[in-house]
Amino acid sequence: MLSPTPRTTLGRSKERARLDREDLYALLDAGLVCHLGAVVDGCPMVVPTGYGRIGDTLYLHGSTGATSLRAGGEVCVTVTHLDGVVLARSVFHHSLNYRSAMIYGRPRLVREEGERLAALRAITEQLAPGRWEAARAPSRRELAATAVLALGLEEASVKVRQGPPSDEEEDYALPVWAGVLPLRRSWGTPEPDPAMDGGREVPEHVARRADPS
Amino acid sequence: MLSPTPRTTLGRSKERARLDREDLYALLDAGLVCHLGAVVDGCPMVVPTGYGRIGDTLYLHGSTGATSLRAGGEVCVTVTHLDGVVLARSVFHHSLNYRSAMIYGRPRLVREEGERLAALRAITEQLAPGRWEAARAPSRRELAATAVLALGLEEASVKVRQGPPSDEEEDYALPVWAGVLPLRRSWGTPEPDPAMDGGREVPEHVARRADPS
Repeated sequence: MLSPTPRTTLGRSKERARLDREDLYALLDAGLVCHLGAVVDGCPMVVPTGYGRIGDTLYLHGSTGATSLRAGGEVCVTVTHLDGVVLARSVFHHSLNYRSAMIYGRPRLVREEGERLAALRAITEQLAPGRWEAARAPSRRELAATAVLALGLEEASVKVRQGPPSDEEEDYALPVWAGVLPLRRSWGTPEPDPAMDGGREVPEHVARRADPS
Repeated sequence: MLSPTPRTTLGRSKERARLDREDLYALLDAGLVCHLGAVVDGCPMVVPTGYGRIGDTLYLHGSTGATSLRAGGEVCVTVTHLDGVVLARSVFHHSLNYRSAMIYGRPRLVREEGERLAALRAITEQLAPGRWEAARAPSRRELAATAVLALGLEEASVKVRQGPPSDEEEDYALPVWAGVLPLRRSWGTPEPDPAMDGGREVPEHVARRADPS
């Protein structure tokens, strides 16, 4: 179970909260990027960035020079999946179907080489399954240029909205079409790098994702 | 043209910057949600939320009780489109093709009723074109429960990555498949609310978005 704190307890729309830790894992594992929020010079900064998860730790990486990673202090990491637009009978009740997670905490700079490599592997495989084995491993120079941060999944909330609109009782009689326009994310046909030898076949780990049938 | 400030000037990957204001507009107009970053009790908070644009103003709305809207102070609004996963010859150069915008500023609470209605219309139409006319207009009570914020598009940056991987010169000889796995967002078949009279036809403004052919 997630352990809600005041800021991870929903104030409104409480029925949208999910308190099962497995829901958090599933939501994170299905994502490609998070939005990382940090405070820089007293002001918020929100940057999209990749991530990976190992157990109850979320890993982030970036250039050692990245402002958002150097900020120190607490961060908020948000991962959002959009599943559809909810078309209600009233303008007011228009909404989105979505799944989103917010994680708060003070990230730890990972220094130990074994954990750094495991984290980079998790981040790479989250974005592109199979690539850690398929591509050239990081060099010493590349590793030195990369900062890895670990964020515990202790303080987190998960919020989910699904299903048809929730209209006001008296609005159900209105002659307004209501429902959901589903939103899907799908992979297109792999586009080989033009700089690559022609005729090199799309490897199985890429083809499988493009067409998961 | 956008007018970069220190925090909207890219420190790295400068070739990814777009300085044309039209690129900012196009990116915002193509989105469904932004990630709104605010500082609450000294800590960052990042929430996904809808938005709308009128000229050089971005509008946000929410419950008058929403923590993220009541925080005051500066915000950072980030809109991200993911276009593909970049599969490089080295783990290090794996990346995403994306378009993202970051907007900084101190939002103004909109009080004038005409501007509030125009903003809510823009936010509704951004999410669901045609619905402002099709659905019941906001009631007095609903309007009173809604806070509308205006954020000028003065301080903004746009960052775009497109195309094949950028590998190290010596890696092009490696026998690693490289390229892009494109990512697409598409609309599914409209799902009528089961609470609606059966047989009500999907209206044109919904059908058009579901199948923009």
